[in-house]
Amino acid sequence: MSGHVLTLNAGSSSLKLGLFTAEAEPGCLAEGHAERIGKDARIRLADGDGRELAARELGEAGATHADALDAALAMLEEHLPEARVEAVGHRVVHGGQDFDRPVRLDDRVLGALEALEPFAPLHQPHNLAGVRAARAAFPQAIQVACFDTAFHRHHPFVNDVFGLPRAFYERGVRRYGFHGLSYDYIAGELARAHPELHAGRVAVAHLGNGASICGIVQGRSVASTMGFTALDGLPMGTRVGQLDPGVVLHLIEQEGMSAAEISEMLYKRSGLLGLSGISNDMRTLEASEDPRAAEAIAYFTFRIRREIGAMAAAMAGLDGIVFTGGIGENSARVRREVCAPLEWLGVTLDEAANEAGARRIDAGGRVGVLAIPTDEERVIARAAAAALGAG
Amino acid sequence: MSGHVLTLNAGSSSLKLGLFTAEAEPGCLAEGHAERIGKDARIRLADGDGRELAARELGEAGATHADALDAALAMLEEHLPEARVEAVGHRVVHGGQDFDRPVRLDDRVLGALEALEPFAPLHQPHNLAGVRAARAAFPQAIQVACFDTAFHRHHPFVNDVFGLPRAFYERGVRRYGFHGLSYDYIAGELARAHPELHAGRVAVAHLGNGASICGIVQGRSVASTMGFTALDGLPMGTRVGQLDPGVVLHLIEQEGMSAAEISEMLYKRSGLLGLSGISNDMRTLEASEDPRAAEAIAYFTFRIRREIGAMAAAMAGLDGIVFTGGIGENSARVRREVCAPLEWLGVTLDEAANEAGARRIDAGGRVGVLAIPTDEERVIARAAAAALGAG
Repeated sequence: MSGHVLTLNAGSSSLKLGLFTAEAEPGCLAEGHAERIGKDARIRLADGDGRELAARELGEAGATHADALDAALAMLEEHLPEARVEAVGHRVVHGGQDFDRPVRLDDRVLGALEALEPFAPLHQPHNLAGVRAARAAFPQAIQVACFDTAFHRHHPFVNDVFGLPRAFYERGVRRYGFHGLSYDYIAGELARAHPELHAGRVAVAHLGNGASICGIVQGRSVASTMGFTALDGLPMGTRVGQLDPGVVLHLIEQEGMSAAEISEMLYKRSGLLGLSGISNDMRTLEASEDPRAAEAIAYFTFRIRREIGAMAAAMAGLDGIVFTGGIGENSARVRREVCAPLEWLGVTLDEAANEAGARRIDAGGRVGVLAIPTDEERVIARAAAAALGAG
Repeated sequence: MSGHVLTLNAGSSSLKLGLFTAEAEPGCLAEGHAERIGKDARIRLADGDGRELAARELGEAGATHADALDAALAMLEEHLPEARVEAVGHRVVHGGQDFDRPVRLDDRVLGALEALEPFAPLHQPHNLAGVRAARAAFPQAIQVACFDTAFHRHHPFVNDVFGLPRAFYERGVRRYGFHGLSYDYIAGELARAHPELHAGRVAVAHLGNGASICGIVQGRSVASTMGFTALDGLPMGTRVGQLDPGVVLHLIEQEGMSAAEISEMLYKRSGLLGLSGISNDMRTLEASEDPRAAEAIAYFTFRIRREIGAMAAAMAGLDGIVFTGGIGENSARVRREVCAPLEWLGVTLDEAANEAGARRIDAGGRVGVLAIPTDEERVIARAAAAALGAG
């Protein structure tokens, strides 16, 4: 049989991997997920249809990302002994100004990506640790980096710059935007199955534990609500989203907080969790009768709606809205709260289709409204397979 | 003759004052303007039609706001000896959570306003210094505070809150919005002369050296692009406008800047000045052939357009756009760059009317577009006259 590609997505305390056939449209054979790395780590392996093949508590044996990767590869070897990994595709959060597409990893590229660590100190080091572990585990395989920033790298100047002194722009303080692998997947789905939207102007809302909106015109990203870091734009599970920079200065100068304390708060104790005081999980909030839960959801959906209006302005019009990511795919309430007050824009909602979780959920209005499950691993697998010459 | 009211507007290095008749619709008798207080101060007095009555270099005699006020009052006494000041109206930038209208100043109120100084450390202390100087100069007069925040104090929760832990909202870290005196004046003009817009949803762009957009529905503010401080929202002459809070953390943690250095940069060296590297003055930028000047203007007008789209979402529609403030009233180019790409929203522009500086500048499209000179002093004078029982 022909070879395989492995996808690796290393988060701060998690590791996702996928085994695919090395074809132009890769077939998924297995998915692994390690979580709580460093503390009570556990790992789960499923086949391409999501059926569990194995699960293990790693405990002390899962103290590092390399440990977790070793354990995951041992599980793969046990359950899919025929796997022959010829390329490894890595999710890397930051590709800086230069990388606007997947790139084959060598020492020079890895050095360039290490130099970007100050731009994404919470994510980039974990991503690159995964790269190093995979190079050690598969010394013969091609290693490919796929960037969350790449899909956004051709924004117009006005969507790339902040109102800072110009020198900061020149040295890379820009609106990179993230979630690019997810948007890349959605753009592909629009081209494949919704040509009328692919030809137009679409606001794609990736709503997961992280959240952003991307404006896509004829398949290309023209704007993102995320800026320089993964903090900006929409409020998220635990992240603050848009914030007056004067608030950060106020917290330092008037409340005596340190930058590290503020960073921890803005990344981990804000957003839905901070506003509700209850949870960062949308399902928990939707089930709660606490008015603060409803207020947190109202703020979340208002900011999405507001940024769809802003994105329409950035695209000079709006032909479609796509919801994706865990919340976007699964919460009928969030989709309804976002869409109902957007009737002025030509947005309609078919309530039954929305409740049923259909793919097309508009009621035939001028603006098409879709909910599409995203698949970032598939975008990485495609890039890795393409590097092997498939397709 | 009946009495007079004096208006006082104390900035960081400037002082504006106006003498009005104490009527429901006050008549302007004189305007004074002191600038560069503390360093080469100078002062100018004009009559109600703008004709210069007197001008003086104060130099060492203009070291403080109290000095400048003394000099201005001496000039008033010389040129308008009949003036009988019965009330003084003060512009005060911050009224906190409670003050949603003008308030008569007594020791208790002054104490409450002093407690808000940490919320507006660059402006509030100067405003209150002006109050104390005026109380000393006119011990018999009523003193009235008029707030830049008051017009915005009934925003819906989703436009008042940030995605921070709830406790910050409770203790006042909110989206106050500013330029409220200007928006109050424009709302009055809409009610007086444009009833169809007054009844609808209007985005008012106050574009001066400071800049923001206010969403006004049936005469009431529902949202502002400015947040907790006067830094947020649109880029301005020297202020940064919207900025990823992660950039502030990056400047501290990766670039080693102090909060004071960042504050100075975000307030004084950013915005149009920072992006162009040339000037914070729109006239200078429009006259420049340097591509960075055009890029700074493009960013400014794009962000205005983007926030008009966001404001339309916050108001669930858009019936009108009003330009005001120095740039909004005078720059046909800025109005054109904002409006031309908003055709998808129903915005049209009558090029000749726009170039001529007419009040109504749309070409008959669904959205009314106006340019209206603002008059914050008049709003203050009305409040002071009302406190005297006029009207």
